[in-house]
This record gives sequence, C-alpha cells and structure tokens, in this order.
Amino acid sequence: MDPSQVKIPPMKDLTVDNITENVIRINSLCQDARLKYILERLVTHLHDFARETRLSTAEWMAGLQFLTEVGQICSDVRQEFILLSDILGLSILVDSMDHPKPPNSTEGTVLGPFHAHNPPNLEQGETISHDEQGEPLLVLCTLRDTQGKPIANAKIDIWETDSTGHYDVQYADRGLDGRCIMRSASDGTFWFKAIMPVSYPIPHDGPVGKLLQRVGRHPALYIRNDPYETSDAVFGVKDSLVVDISRADAEIAKKYNVPEGHAALKYDFVLISDQETKSLREKKAVEALDKLGRKVKIVNGLPVPDLD
Amino acid sequence: MDPSQVKIPPMKDLTVDNITENVIRINSLCQDARLKYILERLVTHLHDFARETRLSTAEWMAGLQFLTEVGQICSDVRQEFILLSDILGLSILVDSMDHPKPPNSTEGTVLGPFHAHNPPNLEQGETISHDEQGEPLLVLCTLRDTQGKPIANAKIDIWETDSTGHYDVQYADRGLDGRCIMRSASDGTFWFKAIMPVSYPIPHDGPVGKLLQRVGRHPALYIRNDPYETSDAVFGVKDSLVVDISRADAEIAKKYNVPEGHAALKYDFVLISDQETKSLREKKAVEALDKLGRKVKIVNGLPVPDLD
Repeated sequence: MDPSQVKIPPMKDLTVDNITENVIRINSLCQDARLKYILERLVTHLHDFARETRLSTAEWMAGLQFLTEVGQICSDVRQEFILLSDILGLSILVDSMDHPKPPNSTEGTVLGPFHAHNPPNLEQGETISHDEQGEPLLVLCTLRDTQGKPIANAKIDIWETDSTGHYDVQYADRGLDGRCIMRSASDGTFWFKAIMPVSYPIPHDGPVGKLLQRVGRHPALYIRNDPYETSDAVFGVKDSLVVDISRADAEIAKKYNVPEGHAALKYDFVLISDQETKSLREKKAVEALDKLGRKVKIVNGLPVPDLD
Repeated sequence: MDPSQVKIPPMKDLTVDNITENVIRINSLCQDARLKYILERLVTHLHDFARETRLSTAEWMAGLQFLTEVGQICSDVRQEFILLSDILGLSILVDSMDHPKPPNSTEGTVLGPFHAHNPPNLEQGETISHDEQGEPLLVLCTLRDTQGKPIANAKIDIWETDSTGHYDVQYADRGLDGRCIMRSASDGTFWFKAIMPVSYPIPHDGPVGKLLQRVGRHPALYIRNDPYETSDAVFGVKDSLVVDISRADAEIAKKYNVPEGHAALKYDFVLISDQETKSLREKKAVEALDKLGRKVKIVNGLPVPDLD
C-alpha cells in the first residue's frame, strides 16, 4: 500500500482502557457495513472477555495453541471447528436465529460435523445402510408445507451411523455407507430402509474431545430413553424431534415388503419456505435487537447499525 | 463414560434465549475454578456476539472456514493465530494486563510472530546481521532495575529483519540471521552490531492478510518518522519505545571500533522483577474487576469468582 494513502487516525500508547476503541477505529476503514459491524462486536466481546478474566499470557498462548490444533486436525472429512462451535452451543444458537420456525412447522437442529457432499442418489425404498450388525429399520416419511400441501421432488439428505455409532467417514479404509440423497414423490412421501439409530460419541480423539474431558462433559449424543438424552454434547435435542419406534402391522408389512413386527419409524415433516424463513428471520432480528437497545436496519437480509 | 455417571442437569428444547445459561450449567461440571470462569465468560461473550449481530449460518461457516485456514497455515516458523490476535489488538491487551509496568520502568510491547527458539549465542560486540545491503548500526544498551542497580548476566533475546523488511524465517532456503541471544555484562551493559531497522509488513499472504485487505488496513509495522508510525498493524507503538538514531562521535568511534559518524542507537532499559510484576498484576486485576462489579479472589495469581 502506498503510504500516502494511509488514512488511519493516529494511535499510540495503547492501554488496557483505550485499546478497544482504537482497534474499532482502525477497522472502521472497512467499506462493508456488515463486516464492519461484525468486527466491532467481535473486538468488543473479545476484549471484554480478556478484561473480565484478566487473561494471562500463558492462558492466551494455550488458547491460541488449542485453536491451532483444532485447525490442523481439520480435513476433507473432519471439521473440528464445527465440533467446537457445537459443544459451545454456538451452532444451535446460530441455527435458531437463521432458521426460525413458526409453531406449526418441524423444528431444525444442528448439521453436525458428519455431513458429506457426495452421497449416492438412491431411489425410494432402497437400503441406505449395509451394516449387517444393525437392526433393520423401515423409515416412512411425508413432507408438507405449512398449508398442508405435499412437497414433491424435494432433495432430502439423509445420514446415520453404523451399529457401533461411527459414521462411514470416520473409517480410513471404507467407502460411503449409511447416507444418501433421495427425492420426495409427487405426494410428498419418501421412504427407505436403514438401521436402528444408536447413541454415539462426537469424535473425541482431538482437541475438542480433550476440552470436554477437562470440563467433565461426555461426548455422547442423544437417543430416545438413553441416559444421555437430556445432556446432548451439542445441545441439539428438541422434544418434537425425539421419535418413537413402532412395529410394522400386516398392512405396512405387505405394502413395504418387510416382515410383520419389523421396526418402523414414521415422521411427518412440515417445512417452511425460504420466503417464510426470510420474513420471520428479519422480524425476529429487528425485535431482538430492539430489545437489546440496538437501532438497526436490515440490508441484504442482515442487520447493520442504522446511523441515519 | 459410564452413563450412570452422567450428572448433568437435563436440558432440552434450547432456544436463543436459554442456550447460554444451559451451556454454562453443563460446563459448571468443570472442577478447575479458573477454567470454569474462563469458559463462562467465553460462552457468554461468544453468544452475545452472535445475538447482537444475528450471525447468519453463512457468516458462521465463513468464520469457521477462516479459522481453519489460520490453523492450517501455522508451522514451526509461522504462527498465524498470534498474528490474528495481534491485528485484533488482543495481544497488546493481554500483555498490558499480564506485564503491567510502573511509570519508572521500560514499557513492553507485543512479541509478534517472528520469535525463534534457537538463535545463536553471541558475545558482546558481535554482529547479529550479515545482510550487506543494510546500513550498519551500532547498538549500545544498559539494563537496570527500578532501584538503578545494573542487571548482570541477563539473557537478552534480539531479533530484526533484513534490509528488505523480511525475517530470516520467512525465507525457505536460508539459515538464521539477524537474531541472537546475548548476556548482559557485570555492569548491566550490552552492545552489538546490527543493521538499521526498516518498516516491514506482517506476513500478509495468508488468511490474516486477506482480512486486513478486506477491512482496508495495511500490514506495515512502525518505524520512526515512517508514514505508518501511528497506525501499526499490531497496535504495538509506544512513544517511549520510539528511538532516535544518533551518530558515533570520536569517543564512541574509538571505543567500539567504528568510523566516526557511524549510526548508533542507545537505549537504557529499566526492568521490573517477577515479584514486582506479580504484585502489580494482582493489584490491578482486583481493582479492574472491582470496577466491573465482579467479586473475585486471586488463586495462583489469577482471578476466580469469589463465591463465599
């Protein structure tokens, strides 16, 4: 950068008390109003965190070393920063704000670190898991909008662990299994064969697992009636998403070609549209920030300070 | 972990409004009072940051991806997380709190990302830089305590860039140069030959450099009378640490075996002891947290909530 172009207000002799305003002032060069707002709040909270804990140099270094390890263990099939965000409750918080749901629709939860981008496309009724140790499970679903209209040809991304509680991508030497992309039928239904879900740990052999251990938390996610059900490591449990497993009666058995008494999971999803989400998200953002005493306007769907 | 050992209070149906208290409750299992306090403040500020910005899923993912890149570019000779902390003003803030200085002592500044752990041990008067393009500089220093007593045999860690503003470790194919460890003499003096400092950029070919560019900031550090002097990218400039370069007079020239008029830098350091630092640090921590309305006690030199 040409030094004659330096238009930064002078700053020198920064102290515990004036550093924050100076960093915010230098960042105010940013032309992107949203990024500027995000950085202003980030720097404020980061500094307040350090001031309120009187963070020591040794702790600061341990924190940076921890973050470095979190970054370095990431790979194409492992995202440890998502995991860290999950166990700190940030993921579910962001999801709640970005994907608000009206009472008549199905709640969302966290994506988690095991989503893959290249699962096979399967047809209705196909088998997604080939783990012979798992108990076979018939899954029967419907997909409707908030007016009760079937949603046809929706892209549905499905993934589950094997019977030992591990995802395919956690094995170095195996291909994809237990996951697929499926399209809903014209009446909004979709169904497939899977295995009974089991409780499973988040990957706890990395820095996030070590942190949980130091804090005294366990790495397990919920299953129904499981001792871990109400203490999900990633805070994703919602009552409405905990399901009962039923058994196939004669009619179901015949229709889906499974033995009577075969385990079956039924779920009716009610989805809201992008437009409904967008309206609700903006309405809730303005309301929440108004409560916090922050005057904002919505630009490109996201709040920035309203300076007018 | 044996599920019967799960002693976590139940939590379900977490919302934007109750997630923070629930994460803090689950982390309160932590037996280490200091870590528990740090996590409580971290989670509070992280969540408040997300709530006040209504952080979107796309922004959250971009942030995690950025942190992943910061971690992945780190190596034995590059610490991008320190750099990120530097440009956000966190490093100078933590240093100010951890190494408070009374008015009669030399101020500190940020370590920066270019410190190396294995520089050569050099004797007094030796040359630390072998860059023939640099203007030779004689450096004459003294080291005293706050009572004015010379500090003998102190380990002094010295490093500077070459004449193009790059540190040795930034070259893939060169050995260490421009750095050394030296011991002060019995009268507290130390001196060596170096080259004139030049302004230089922090490494800006990685994610932190990209962030600075998006914000409209420059990556340069200060030199005296430099256009960048008052807008140091890492907020490290302190008036008392900005020095004038003098010229060797006949006496200096003779004593140190340099030509008359040779560039010379003189600096008298006044250092405080570990014990002085510790007392001042604890006193300031209690005062600052009292001002913030936080009742704390000092355990192992660091504050934790005083719950008694």
